Amino acid sequence: MNIDSFFFERTLELAARGRGRTSPNPMVGAVLVKDGRIIAEGCHRRHGDLHAEAAALEAAGSEAGGAELYCSLEPCSYRSPEKLQPPCTERIIAAGVRHVHIGQPDPNPKVSGRGVLALREVGIGVSLSEENEAFWRFNDAFNTRMVLSRPFVHLKCAMSLDGRIAAAGGDSRWISDESARRVGHRFRSERDAIAVGIGTVLADDPELSTRLVEGHSPRPVVFDSSLKIPLESRLVRERGDELIVLAVPSEDVTENFFDVKHRLEQRGVRVLYAEPDSTGKADLSSALDLLYAQGIGSLLVEGGSGLLTSFLKHRLYDRLSAFVAPVLLGSGVEAVGDLGITRAGDGLAFEGVNWFRIGDQQLFDAYRSGWLEELRSNFTVQEAAYVHGTC
Amino acid sequence: MNIDSFFFERTLELAARGRGRTSPNPMVGAVLVKDGRIIAEGCHRRHGDLHAEAAALEAAGSEAGGAELYCSLEPCSYRSPEKLQPPCTERIIAAGVRHVHIGQPDPNPKVSGRGVLALREVGIGVSLSEENEAFWRFNDAFNTRMVLSRPFVHLKCAMSLDGRIAAAGGDSRWISDESARRVGHRFRSERDAIAVGIGTVLADDPELSTRLVEGHSPRPVVFDSSLKIPLESRLVRERGDELIVLAVPSEDVTENFFDVKHRLEQRGVRVLYAEPDSTGKADLSSALDLLYAQGIGSLLVEGGSGLLTSFLKHRLYDRLSAFVAPVLLGSGVEAVGDLGITRAGDGLAFEGVNWFRIGDQQLFDAYRSGWLEELRSNFTVQEAAYVHGTC
Ligand SMILES: NC(=O)c1ccc[n+]([C@@H]2O[C@H](COP(=O)([O-])OP(=O)(O)OC[C@H]3O[C@@H](n4cnc5c(N)ncnc54)[C@H](OP(=O)(O)O)[C@@H]3O)[C@@H](O)[C@H]2O)c1
Ligand SMILES: NC(=O)c1ccc[n+]([C@@H]2O[C@H](COP(=O)([O-])OP(=O)(O)OC[C@H]3O[C@@H](n4cnc5c(N)ncnc54)[C@H](OP(=O)(O)O)[C@@H]3O)[C@@H](O)[C@H]2O)c1
Repeated sequence: MNIDSFFFERTLELAARGRGRTSPNPMVGAVLVKDGRIIAEGCHRRHGDLHAEAAALEAAGSEAGGAELYCSLEPCSYRSPEKLQPPCTERIIAAGVRHVHIGQPDPNPKVSGRGVLALREVGIGVSLSEENEAFWRFNDAFNTRMVLSRPFVHLKCAMSLDGRIAAAGGDSRWISDESARRVGHRFRSERDAIAVGIGTVLADDPELSTRLVEGHSPRPVVFDSSLKIPLESRLVRERGDELIVLAVPSEDVTENFFDVKHRLEQRGVRVLYAEPDSTGKADLSSALDLLYAQGIGSLLVEGGSGLLTSFLKHRLYDRLSAFVAPVLLGSGVEAVGDLGITRAGDGLAFEGVNWFRIGDQQLFDAYRSGWLEELRSNFTVQEAAYVHGTC
Repeated sequence: MNIDSFFFERTLELAARGRGRTSPNPMVGAVLVKDGRIIAEGCHRRHGDLHAEAAALEAAGSEAGGAELYCSLEPCSYRSPEKLQPPCTERIIAAGVRHVHIGQPDPNPKVSGRGVLALREVGIGVSLSEENEAFWRFNDAFNTRMVLSRPFVHLKCAMSLDGRIAAAGGDSRWISDESARRVGHRFRSERDAIAVGIGTVLADDPELSTRLVEGHSPRPVVFDSSLKIPLESRLVRERGDELIVLAVPSEDVTENFFDVKHRLEQRGVRVLYAEPDSTGKADLSSALDLLYAQGIGSLLVEGGSGLLTSFLKHRLYDRLSAFVAPVLLGSGVEAVGDLGITRAGDGLAFEGVNWFRIGDQQLFDAYRSGWLEELRSNFTVQEAAYVHGTC
């Protein structure tokens, strides 16, 4: 590992301290280096707080003059009414930093190279990490939202070794253990919303909480075309005023539908109408647009089989995290149903594949093959920022 | 790790040098230790060669006097016409070894404690490893055969993350890559025979070779009740004189059955008659007896779905090795079919679970839950060998 990678890795460690607390901002970390040693560190702790660069500069005080700054993300360069912090570029310039190393350009269209340009303009050297996959993946949701203007879609499930998410009797408890559920709750706390299909609500009556970890509780979303959700379900009873239900009113909708809708709304539930797909269920692309309009920039899809399969089939997913437990169930509810694939070579492939051992289980964690390339090729950076091949 | 564990671990490393070459003998390793240092090492390289203890003693020469001997398995203590080497206990005594540390008692009914007794009788100290799971698992097939008098059954498959061993079109290539296949071939070279169902022969026309690794080629076995195996299949054409076909002649068997049987036998194929189970397929317990009578002490079952599911359903398996590839296939051939399990808590569980990363794949490798206990509780050791609580 060269010395740059070492400092860059440290920026990500610092950035991770903001996990689950920075949205809609990205997680960012920064270190100041002088004579090959770290003299100050900073991170963006939560939305509204100091930016990472500013925190590192503040910690360094007058020592920052002449230092090099490593930051996981390009420093911001603009002011706006909703923005709570002033531009970091101004602080960096004022502190007399000599050189800035950037993990990843900021895909926010208000920045995307303008931070680099602002620094160069006053003669500060700027270089960009050459291997920046790690940075794109680290803020996967932020990056996806900024570049593709839709929510980041993260599929999650817990399955047996033979690919079942529930036994034949519909029961899915004990497939994963507490250690895996804790990681699952961490994923939840990082996203703006969690989606399940109505089948899961009827089978498991989940509460979709994050009680095993610190951090915020995302909004629950239920895909429920004909409003079968019971008024006594935990989600309606306990999370009613955060709950979003995606219905698809069909032509032969009954009066009951509007009656239930009314009762749900009385309990604070937001019932949204999604477009129907060819089978009369919620068209996922339009559903994602609706959620995006509600301020949901990232969605953890937790199943069941029907909903996961739909997202996979329409290629509307960015990441998959699957806990694989050392148990065989034989028949039961399959994690993934028919995808229309007939040749093994046409299977859905992944990139950035990680496997983590959690107890006796494995966590498979990876991105849709082509995800990074899609982001990079849709991302437009200020061309001038890339002159001299250094950015 | 204490010092005993260190030397014991080394005996297993040495033992592994005989992998795929010692059957029907176990793999064994031995080290001689003096003043806390290894002065000589030995292993059983292949069936017929020197035993590990003898090899270590030979390497040490007169230095062996007063040394301590660590061996992964209890030294043998008997002579017999089929046995190619003299008793190791005699050699150990003659060399003047002071103390013997044993990884695992030898489950061979001709030994099972008699090695310990023979050493104790002349005043040599003997102690048995307290954590001997690793040794029982290391020679899993030998131990199972010796204690249970049936072949060791090792299930193997390569599947997608969602538990499919072939795509909907029946095509199973590209599910695992060359690095996984190489490990698969190593498993093959360690077993006496490889079994597949007739469905796999008809779908894939496999050759069941071990060409990617050194070592012997196990005998192919096909479960084929009504002799559907094509005379032009690779197994009949290329491996005819090693091939075993397990047929189940039913009452309404046609003349064609005997005609095919005759033609197969002309090509050297051994056609055996298994008892029918309740569905008219080969009863697996009787099939294992037939194979055992053919000298087959270990069987790698490679699929397909039908055969794997039968072995699982009847709990006639000892170990499962499943390669899990980072790909989703949706529908297709499921690795495991109905096991009659309806509650997640009743799933088939495993012990000694290992997960290995192989390329972007994972190898799940584990034993049937209860396997070790079954062996231990069926193993009878000479009681006297266990006096003084040291063995
Ligand atoms: N182990 C795990 O990780 C895990 C997690 C969750 C669930 N589960 C298990 O999964 C099982 C439930 O799975 P499931 O397949 O029956 O139910 P599901 O996926 O939770 O719900 C499917 C239903 O959602 C509605 N829906 C609306 N729009 C859809 C769309 N675009 N695509 C797909 N569905 C859409 C449809 O009903 P309408 O047409 O009526 O709207 C559909 O029938 C339960 O046994 C549960 O225990 C396991
Ligand atoms: N990825 C992998 O690791 C892998 C490995 C192997 C195969 N495969 C795939 O698996 C598919 C074949 O699977 P399959 O289920 O059709 O075939 P299979 O398991 O190879 O063969 C099943 C047939 O074996 C015979 N059989 C005899 N005794 C049996 C018993 N006790 N239990 C079960 N079967 C018995 C039965 O036919 P009779 O009644 O006629 O005897 C049965 O229909 C192919 O697509 C192949 O590519 C994948």
